[in-house]
Amino acid sequence: MNDANTTMDGQALAEAARDAMFESDHCSKSLGMEVLSVAAGRASMRMTVRRDMLNGHGTCHGGMIFSLADSCFAFACNSRNQRAVAMSCVIDFIKPAREGDVLTAAAREVSLVGRNGIYDIAVSNGDGEQVAQFRGKSLVIPGSVGGG
Amino acid sequence: MNDANTTMDGQALAEAARDAMFESDHCSKSLGMEVLSVAAGRASMRMTVRRDMLNGHGTCHGGMIFSLADSCFAFACNSRNQRAVAMSCVIDFIKPAREGDVLTAAAREVSLVGRNGIYDIAVSNGDGEQVAQFRGKSLVIPGSVGGG
Amino acid sequence: MNDANTTMDGQALAEAARDAMFESDHCSKSLGMEVLSVAAGRASMRMTVRRDMLNGHGTCHGGMIFSLADSCFAFACNSRNQRAVAMSCVIDFIKPAREGDVLTAAAREVSLVGRNGIYDIAVSNGDGEQVAQFRGKSLVIPGSVGGG
Amino acid sequence: MNDANTTMDGQALAEAARDAMFESDHCSKSLGMEVLSVAAGRASMRMTVRRDMLNGHGTCHGGMIFSLADSCFAFACNSRNQRAVAMSCVIDFIKPAREGDVLTAAAREVSLVGRNGIYDIAVSNGDGEQVAQFRGKSLVIPGSVGGG
Repeated sequence: MNDANTTMDGQALAEAARDAMFESDHCSKSLGMEVLSVAAGRASMRMTVRRDMLNGHGTCHGGMIFSLADSCFAFACNSRNQRAVAMSCVIDFIKPAREGDVLTAAAREVSLVGRNGIYDIAVSNGDGEQVAQFRGKSLVIPGSVGGG
Repeated sequence: MNDANTTMDGQALAEAARDAMFESDHCSKSLGMEVLSVAAGRASMRMTVRRDMLNGHGTCHGGMIFSLADSCFAFACNSRNQRAVAMSCVIDFIKPAREGDVLTAAAREVSLVGRNGIYDIAVSNGDGEQVAQFRGKSLVIPGSVGGG
Repeated sequence: MNDANTTMDGQALAEAARDAMFESDHCSKSLGMEVLSVAAGRASMRMTVRRDMLNGHGTCHGGMIFSLADSCFAFACNSRNQRAVAMSCVIDFIKPAREGDVLTAAAREVSLVGRNGIYDIAVSNGDGEQVAQFRGKSLVIPGSVGGG
Repeated sequence: MNDANTTMDGQALAEAARDAMFESDHCSKSLGMEVLSVAAGRASMRMTVRRDMLNGHGTCHGGMIFSLADSCFAFACNSRNQRAVAMSCVIDFIKPAREGDVLTAAAREVSLVGRNGIYDIAVSNGDGEQVAQFRGKSLVIPGSVGGG
């Protein structure tokens, strides 16, 4: 797969990384997430808020919104098929999400210098309203996603 | 329940808030979380990492660790039976968690001035090693947890 | 000045707020900052790294980079001439700044819902390289900047 | 100085690092900061809010409070005489500071695993009230503070 890095273009690499990661991502799959798109430094995902995602206030648990954003972050920061892990994340909750809401997360790379990346992930609902803003810091570690 | 706030002591209030919140917290229950203890401004919880909590790197998904910390934060910041919501959270991942790890979260109130609270939640594994540090900012909103 | 809010357009309002604030902003002036531009929800500023801004490692003190970003944040979040204060800020340091570097900060509004705003401020050096990324959360409080 | 690391005890090492760093820390000195104490993983500092530290709202500029916390963070994370730099910092502002207020910052090490440290710095005023809470993430880089 490391050889592939030098021959595949960025888009093919991002898709190969997505396929390898999503296949074994039990958590994202069990939460019903879908990967809508990937590209070099970018990803978007979707998740519908289920009853078992509600908290004690009757709204979507912050951890579920975070999970969607964090998965989207992972697909974006691993999109170059270099293994990267989350070091630190900040999430700001803007508007509650309700059962049945279809949440979309969109990740973009703000900065990638050496092994350190910064990614912004916006989570919005079906009406296009902002639900949360997430900023994740990643660290590239040895190995590729698809093998190596 | 608001009358109760003036007659119950802090411990009874925290336990009443816990009972009212946990009962309807579908998410925390579906993730197998248990509330170990609550007190005024404090809470501790436990969760075992299941296979369906693993991410594409084969370790516990950051969103699951966040969810445990966030639930613990909610029990701590609602422990005075004044409804409070999470505004913003920061999580730093220190050590990966593995399938079968029993994670414990412990929340303490750092500051509560007016309606704004700051809470620190430490997540550790069964060997007492730090897995993550979480800092949550809460806002008290009208209403009580148990009614009102 | 509150009457002015209803008759001035956004640009005039932002400039009036800037003039009123910068005049009494002893700190930003003593650090040699200049306001390059303001608009509704936006601002940009500039500061040259002086010898008295260096830390014990011989590079620009993180607090000076933060100060530039924080001032820029203040001009952006007060640009509608409603008084707003910083609640919480996150800064990620990407590249060190050196004595003589001319730093530019650019702030944009990510979200403004009710009284709560989120602003991103990018700090770059004279070569256009990213030095830091800053995210600030503001709260609108009673009063205007220019009076009230 | 590296040899010293193996022979000096933790306290002597922290003091040697402090002396080496503070001597060349033009910024902290120009802001009138004093180092009150250092120890392995800890530091405390003091600064009086001057007129030239006030912002456009007439209170202490957030960047000055941040600078005090950030310097204190630096003395704590360099206290083992391994050079460490700030990667990312979060500050929550709790109560405004006024001209003449004597601010004290106290840093403690929350976690140090491999090259990554987490430090909490509490800033309080002369009445012992919390002014801000700061959490800094550091990275150990090659070299010592006092020399090579």
